Amino acid sequence: MSEIRRNIITRDWVIMATERAKRPHEFGSFKKVRESLPLYKDNCPFCVGNEHLSTKDIIRIEGKDSWKVRIIPNKYPALSPEGNRERHTSGLQQTISGIGVHDVVIESPNHNAILAFLSIEDIAEIIRAYKQRYAQIRQDRRMEAIVIFKNYGESAGSSLEHTHSQIAATPVVPPQFRDRVEEAIRYFDDHGDCIFCRTIIDEIALSSRIILENGSFVAFIPFAALTPFHIWVFPRIHKSSFEDISEEEIQDLASILKKILLKIYYGLGDPDYNYTIRSSPTADRETRYFHWYVSIIPKMSKQAGFEMGTGMYINSSIPEESAEYLRSIVIPE
Amino acid sequence: MSEIRRNIITRDWVIMATERAKRPHEFGSFKKVRESLPLYKDNCPFCVGNEHLSTKDIIRIEGKDSWKVRIIPNKYPALSPEGNRERHTSGLQQTISGIGVHDVVIESPNHNAILAFLSIEDIAEIIRAYKQRYAQIRQDRRMEAIVIFKNYGESAGSSLEHTHSQIAATPVVPPQFRDRVEEAIRYFDDHGDCIFCRTIIDEIALSSRIILENGSFVAFIPFAALTPFHIWVFPRIHKSSFEDISEEEIQDLASILKKILLKIYYGLGDPDYNYTIRSSPTADRETRYFHWYVSIIPKMSKQAGFEMGTGMYINSSIPEESAEYLRSIVIPE
Repeated sequence: MSEIRRNIITRDWVIMATERAKRPHEFGSFKKVRESLPLYKDNCPFCVGNEHLSTKDIIRIEGKDSWKVRIIPNKYPALSPEGNRERHTSGLQQTISGIGVHDVVIESPNHNAILAFLSIEDIAEIIRAYKQRYAQIRQDRRMEAIVIFKNYGESAGSSLEHTHSQIAATPVVPPQFRDRVEEAIRYFDDHGDCIFCRTIIDEIALSSRIILENGSFVAFIPFAALTPFHIWVFPRIHKSSFEDISEEEIQDLASILKKILLKIYYGLGDPDYNYTIRSSPTADRETRYFHWYVSIIPKMSKQAGFEMGTGMYINSSIPEESAEYLRSIVIPE
Repeated sequence: MSEIRRNIITRDWVIMATERAKRPHEFGSFKKVRESLPLYKDNCPFCVGNEHLSTKDIIRIEGKDSWKVRIIPNKYPALSPEGNRERHTSGLQQTISGIGVHDVVIESPNHNAILAFLSIEDIAEIIRAYKQRYAQIRQDRRMEAIVIFKNYGESAGSSLEHTHSQIAATPVVPPQFRDRVEEAIRYFDDHGDCIFCRTIIDEIALSSRIILENGSFVAFIPFAALTPFHIWVFPRIHKSSFEDISEEEIQDLASILKKILLKIYYGLGDPDYNYTIRSSPTADRETRYFHWYVSIIPKMSKQAGFEMGTGMYINSSIPEESAEYLRSIVIPE
């Protein structure tokens, strides 16, 4: 019989489909051969030298020979900052004006860069740019929630080859955010503890789902991972917002992120993936109950009618086995 | 500026990305050419004559020359009915045994059948089989929620060619269900009205999002459709559970479902799709606040980091335009 596990941070029930489960190395066999890219493409708006093809810089981090990281407004934004935040209600119809932020973070001047293969220092520069932009956006009181995310590969939703991530801010607190915050508050009120801090303690004590640890972060497969190789990276120090990441934490996050992405690259055959950096709503920057974190989701499965209809996930892997497998992957020098 | 609409039944905020919006006929241009299938395949477990290759019938509806519809247990079930429903909690770890139901509904004895092209009477037989099985499963008090769904095409999660749908039952009320029920209760308490009944009245009065109506059903694009051409089919008569569908409603549902699927087929170029039939949790079979319905979701978009991270949807179409377009599609005789 399979087991259904509850992800108590997201409230999701996940069917651990043991009868359909694959062994970890079977996931790796879906090896994808990515096209090898040139250093520079003359029509790529993100390549160094082509800045005139893209929108104007919001943030630019300079390197020795060229810029290292640029943040620009998305040319086709889902949300843009101009206008007032206005709500209208008419009967059952509720709307709010589509203001918000939708930026692109160009992670390297080079067309063929791959995030996992950048140096720790270069990844740290990207995280510094995220932080700087997060702090800017948070000044705008119309923005209720800020999310940083990356789509790597076509099946993860990326339509551009040049390595990049995105930052979005929304004029409402999305229900998914609110639900997690409410669960965290309930846990805090019941136990006097942050549920994320408690999870870190439990995962370290148990150790079977840990992938990597360093001074500031713990990376593990959640007990009720929503999909195969779903990974959470929790900072050890309790802070509600990514905005308050320290310089030491930036370096440690760059280091652990690079190692995880390389383990995924070598262990799972360079799959497409998404990552998201989640914080509390901007109006709740400092709370006892919410804890910012990074979620990494390799694209190893597809959601279909079962998931849509029941709202439950089916995970065809065993979290403890997945963690053991990723621990065992040796990153070539 | 784009507009963000709230789906007050699901609580989701949907960004109507007017700047990225496509005109309805642009969606149709992604025309897919499906392989033409033979009437019979000797290794297909769902073909008539190959019953020995499949699991045993739970329900069989007989026709003149052969059976018309069979319901069998899924050979690779996510959940199966054997065993006790047991919950365990250890610290933050909550589990429940993976009992449940996961059936396959074989919709036709013929390998090359396409649901939209079956006769209304044949589709009505499928719906009768759904109803019969729903009622059986509901007798089992371990099952808290029952969902009927169809995955049509590979991108919608189907791995078998032979036309089929599925029925799943879960031993917990999934949070997605619970959230919708809670919203419906809140609306009922605030307004003394079922929010679904109210929606039907409003949509008919407004008429711009209606696709089709008949004696028992109203099909429309929701005000805050989660994705392009997301369609809701609401029964006019208030009932909480699909189990209580009447014979007249079965015939009307078969008729409206066929017409919608044909409009999607001709108007959008035979896209992959999912549909789900949603009811209240089994323990709340008759309520004033919840109303069963069918949701049809053609696969016209992909969810990526933006949706995952913010929990908001981006819809690159305008519901009123989509409805007008589908109304205009003439089904060839």
